[in-house]
Amino acid sequence: MTFRFRLHYAPDNASLCVRIALLEMGLPFDSILVDRRKNAQKAPQFLAMNPNGLIPVLETPDGPMFETAAILLWLADRAELLIAPADSPQRAHDLQWLFWLSNTLHATLRMLFYPAQYADGAPEILHVRTRARLVAQLDMLEAATTAPWRDADAASIHGCYLAPMLRWCALYGGSTDWFDLARWPKLHAFAKRIETRPALIQAARAEGLGPLPVSAPSPCVPPEGSAL
Amino acid sequence: MTFRFRLHYAPDNASLCVRIALLEMGLPFDSILVDRRKNAQKAPQFLAMNPNGLIPVLETPDGPMFETAAILLWLADRAELLIAPADSPQRAHDLQWLFWLSNTLHATLRMLFYPAQYADGAPEILHVRTRARLVAQLDMLEAATTAPWRDADAASIHGCYLAPMLRWCALYGGSTDWFDLARWPKLHAFAKRIETRPALIQAARAEGLGPLPVSAPSPCVPPEGSAL
Repeated sequence: MTFRFRLHYAPDNASLCVRIALLEMGLPFDSILVDRRKNAQKAPQFLAMNPNGLIPVLETPDGPMFETAAILLWLADRAELLIAPADSPQRAHDLQWLFWLSNTLHATLRMLFYPAQYADGAPEILHVRTRARLVAQLDMLEAATTAPWRDADAASIHGCYLAPMLRWCALYGGSTDWFDLARWPKLHAFAKRIETRPALIQAARAEGLGPLPVSAPSPCVPPEGSAL
Repeated sequence: MTFRFRLHYAPDNASLCVRIALLEMGLPFDSILVDRRKNAQKAPQFLAMNPNGLIPVLETPDGPMFETAAILLWLADRAELLIAPADSPQRAHDLQWLFWLSNTLHATLRMLFYPAQYADGAPEILHVRTRARLVAQLDMLEAATTAPWRDADAASIHGCYLAPMLRWCALYGGSTDWFDLARWPKLHAFAKRIETRPALIQAARAEGLGPLPVSAPSPCVPPEGSAL
């Protein structure tokens, strides 16, 4: 693929997962800031690319594409990198965990970060349960010996997706006391491992994520735009 | 594929989407009831296949697999049916809508059906907002001219996934006053169209879904087990 992709992003947003994957795959791209302070993700031009009004959108040779995990999967299959090929016996596992990261871990994090989108009145009523669910989900991930991100040596789209989510747990959604990465030694080791990879280092520089962006994150200080 | 699949199912549960897809693809399978009245989905043997304790699980030649949408995608790619192939320009669209059905529409429905899993105290605080979000999501789906389920003549995994979800809106989650399929003419037409397909008719028979299981559903009267 010699096409130059266009990643519509906001700092430390879900677009970060796609940025890391593009860098891991060595695919050329430009990043276009979506100015969340101006609610640019709800502007007509953006909605024409993603009617959900959510970041990211990736402009591909086949048109603009939304949904973080769909973009990761599409890129991985086209580049033949970071996922088991369609005919591999590992493919079923890779797909199930990718959907799980999307519809379970990521979906739960959205409830932690944006509770008012889910409940009227006193949205903080959600927090206790949401945090308990996240702990249970991370416990499950820690125990999942077959999860693709567990392979220390190979990059995977799961790792590109999981790393920002671990970062966000430590930074966003009100009190972060519930989250202590040391509780999950294998996730902790993954976090320390992935942040030494060139793709993560380059992504952290582009979005101002600090020196230990996954294992010991500091607040985002982006060169442009505003964080999650 | 001559392998005989094993679908762990409960009547009118998410496993229904997989059953419809298996029938559409003409793949041989046995269905194994997971007795939800005995909480069999939380039993050790089941958790060994799916640590989430959720239905469905599909036993494949590559081992047991969870996540409804992952199963649909994996089957479709292996059978080369019901989804655009990996090298098609339509693939990006197909993937984005599949993830959207999973992490947005399906995830929101789970909050409608099981609010106590998401909020302590007064989970019904969620209902107003959840219903409003579902209406907005169905509005978006109605307007999405590029969504794969829109093609009247072709079966798709999106259709297999969407049809049960439309059915559930009309039946579950407390008051269903918020839901009137006629509000969405294209979704309504889809519902009437898909329930004439042999796969849907056969699935409806197997799980006791009645004569118009998508466009005008009646409560599930399954030959074995209990419904959602």
